[in-house]
Amino acid sequence: MNPSIPKGTRDFGPQEMARRNYIFDTIRQVYSLYGFEQIETPAMENLSTLMGKYGEEGDKLLFRILNSGDFLRGITPEDLGDGASGHLSALLCEKGLRYDLTVPFARYVVGHREQLQMPFRRYQIAPVWRADRPQKGRYREFYQCDADVVGSDSLLCEVELMQIIDEVFRRFGIRVCIKINNRKILSGIAEMICEADKIVNITVAIDKLEKIGLDAVNDELRKNGINEEAIKKLQPIINLSGSNEEKIHTMRETLAGSEIGQKGLDEVEYVMKTLKTLNNQSTPTSMVNPLELDLTLARGLGYYTGCIFEVKALDVEIGSITGGGRYDNLTGIFGLPGLSGVGISFGADRIYDVLGQLELYPDAIATQSQVLFINFGEKETDYSLPILSQLRGAGIRCEIFPDTCKMKKQMQYANQKGIPFVAMTGEQEMQQGKVMLKDMRSGEQKLVAPDEMIIKLKS
Amino acid sequence: MNPSIPKGTRDFGPQEMARRNYIFDTIRQVYSLYGFEQIETPAMENLSTLMGKYGEEGDKLLFRILNSGDFLRGITPEDLGDGASGHLSALLCEKGLRYDLTVPFARYVVGHREQLQMPFRRYQIAPVWRADRPQKGRYREFYQCDADVVGSDSLLCEVELMQIIDEVFRRFGIRVCIKINNRKILSGIAEMICEADKIVNITVAIDKLEKIGLDAVNDELRKNGINEEAIKKLQPIINLSGSNEEKIHTMRETLAGSEIGQKGLDEVEYVMKTLKTLNNQSTPTSMVNPLELDLTLARGLGYYTGCIFEVKALDVEIGSITGGGRYDNLTGIFGLPGLSGVGISFGADRIYDVLGQLELYPDAIATQSQVLFINFGEKETDYSLPILSQLRGAGIRCEIFPDTCKMKKQMQYANQKGIPFVAMTGEQEMQQGKVMLKDMRSGEQKLVAPDEMIIKLKS
Repeated sequence: MNPSIPKGTRDFGPQEMARRNYIFDTIRQVYSLYGFEQIETPAMENLSTLMGKYGEEGDKLLFRILNSGDFLRGITPEDLGDGASGHLSALLCEKGLRYDLTVPFARYVVGHREQLQMPFRRYQIAPVWRADRPQKGRYREFYQCDADVVGSDSLLCEVELMQIIDEVFRRFGIRVCIKINNRKILSGIAEMICEADKIVNITVAIDKLEKIGLDAVNDELRKNGINEEAIKKLQPIINLSGSNEEKIHTMRETLAGSEIGQKGLDEVEYVMKTLKTLNNQSTPTSMVNPLELDLTLARGLGYYTGCIFEVKALDVEIGSITGGGRYDNLTGIFGLPGLSGVGISFGADRIYDVLGQLELYPDAIATQSQVLFINFGEKETDYSLPILSQLRGAGIRCEIFPDTCKMKKQMQYANQKGIPFVAMTGEQEMQQGKVMLKDMRSGEQKLVAPDEMIIKLKS
Repeated sequence: MNPSIPKGTRDFGPQEMARRNYIFDTIRQVYSLYGFEQIETPAMENLSTLMGKYGEEGDKLLFRILNSGDFLRGITPEDLGDGASGHLSALLCEKGLRYDLTVPFARYVVGHREQLQMPFRRYQIAPVWRADRPQKGRYREFYQCDADVVGSDSLLCEVELMQIIDEVFRRFGIRVCIKINNRKILSGIAEMICEADKIVNITVAIDKLEKIGLDAVNDELRKNGINEEAIKKLQPIINLSGSNEEKIHTMRETLAGSEIGQKGLDEVEYVMKTLKTLNNQSTPTSMVNPLELDLTLARGLGYYTGCIFEVKALDVEIGSITGGGRYDNLTGIFGLPGLSGVGISFGADRIYDVLGQLELYPDAIATQSQVLFINFGEKETDYSLPILSQLRGAGIRCEIFPDTCKMKKQMQYANQKGIPFVAMTGEQEMQQGKVMLKDMRSGEQKLVAPDEMIIKLKS
């Protein structure tokens, strides 16, 4: 019998954990430097909190928790006759696993509004669950790494989030392009061509320009029911190119008649200008990754109301590895209107893959012991234990093989775990108060005192 | 509308998180120094993995996850007619939330046995869920912090776990007594008085000696159906006192006829002797907390087969704050017999309370910004942002108030968040390339260059 785990879930062994912790710790540290503080919400929320927040499709993807005890109490034969409807599952289950960290955050802000100082900057790094069909790179349990500022509509928040993204990927050594758009610019485009409900189709079509060429893009727009006049008006947008300044200049003219469009351009321009001011300063404060205005960026439009961000890795073919944006009324669904927020979310699973493919994991994140003491018997162990304590006191990870078994087996253990040093304490070593330290890579052996051993292992 | 969270669950705000992370990080660091590596298993396991592992009562406390999609498929009217039986819930639910970290660990070891180097030392710090009736100090979602060594029956593992317990509480500054017992000693006692099934009743009765006195303890034993001859034999055990050595000496005689009892005494004696050898060495390697043989310690007998541990805080009235023991056949339930293991688990929630009551949380664990920059307007912000970047480059947590609003409001924000310094950048400061730094506690203000600011905030 080999017990399995639910499909779409994963076990993480020591090496994977070391890598994942490196990712989480890096993100955590940068969030923290920008004044974000961590919170944690329960894995399970009341279904009344979660339902209706992710669309009809999202409701279906919620994992529901069967009520404890007599879960059929109050359920009539008629309820059962309806089949596995939303109605019946609502009777059987009051709770569900969180689907993301954003709705629990909104719920948290509303529930704790009396104690919170606004603007409230929080981050949360935690698993979420979705009953999605599992496939390559898509899991039913995965981590989100969110930071949001709520209670301010200042664009400085957007500026700082761009800095955070830049800093995190700088620390990882991943070269990225940060793409920015604004929901208001898209609204302006829709306004201009009177096709408010087709803006997603339009951005999807425009996004294919490089791949399929201008004519095919225009054909696709026609197929989506966009009329010829509108397509004509869209040409400068489809062909938009040049520097960010040039793009903004072109769009200013194209959207000359749209107040909301101009507002969106103002917002993007402010963010870019402010970051540029920073880049004109001395080196350590400069952004290292480019920021690019990309009008095809549309991320969950129903949700965002201002700036939208997305990050693409430059050296690996993979989807967006970070995203975010501003939403003007997140807490409104819980009865607290008027709080604007903006946030980002790092895609830990994809970043994990990118770091692996580019071989960017630092050696120093290894978590196995730095030295294994060979167990030769009780007397030698009594001699070794205080030395192990001394090493640990100096912050060195170490262990002694618990069983007195063949040396070969113990060496094999060290080898296969990648433990870089082995310490031996035989009769001679004990007499001299020393340890024979073997470097497992070079095979070199050296007789050292515990103090020297610490220096050697710390270097 | 104030959306609530499921009963028995909790939100953790920034200050609570800082404290909890301090606890988890401390435990993690010590585990790591002893060569334990972290793993993570999914929150949900197949119910076939979980069921029957925690007794009948435990099965009822499992949170079950409703199957996705058409959860009534294959369920007949007869199934429904049975009511909310285990039978029906098994049809509705294939998965459940983990109840502890031990069974998932056993499942992990069996599933990954090909890749694992034995002995395998792992730790896992993660939430578990139980549909228990919530009450003070008992939650439906809570963290466990487990370390186990599996694949060795060497008592050195027990020795090192005692060192880990000692070191963790030394770091916390909590004075504790580490209690140790051995399942084999209890078996020896049961053997001696021929009452194998009453050993838990016996330990419970003996445990009351201090509170109710010898006569009442004996009465309770009688009430439990222990015969007079057995009670007579139990007297030296009930009255057991003195040093650990004296207790072991007495027990050696009392259990003279019991092979298993003597084996249990050997084991406890070895652990104590080895730790004593360590204590005879130079100071840094000594244990600071006392280890005490306590025969009333019985923790989940069905489970443990060798040493049993429990930790009591000396300066706070609270139950056990850490526990553990050896189990000889954990993975046997999943078809991999013959692997002995031993582990401990720190009770994070209780440790949280103890640290709070004894006011032992270090100031340095605070996570709010160390300095808030007042927002005076766009020009001042442009001047401030590079300085903020410089501070962050030096590892200082800082933020700028995102909105240009009344100074009073901004100062209030700093005050209520406990941000210790506020930075102001007006016309004069900008001309001089400096910042006015205000110490929020003393009220003192000082004009400083960014470099000086870093030195000041780092000290």
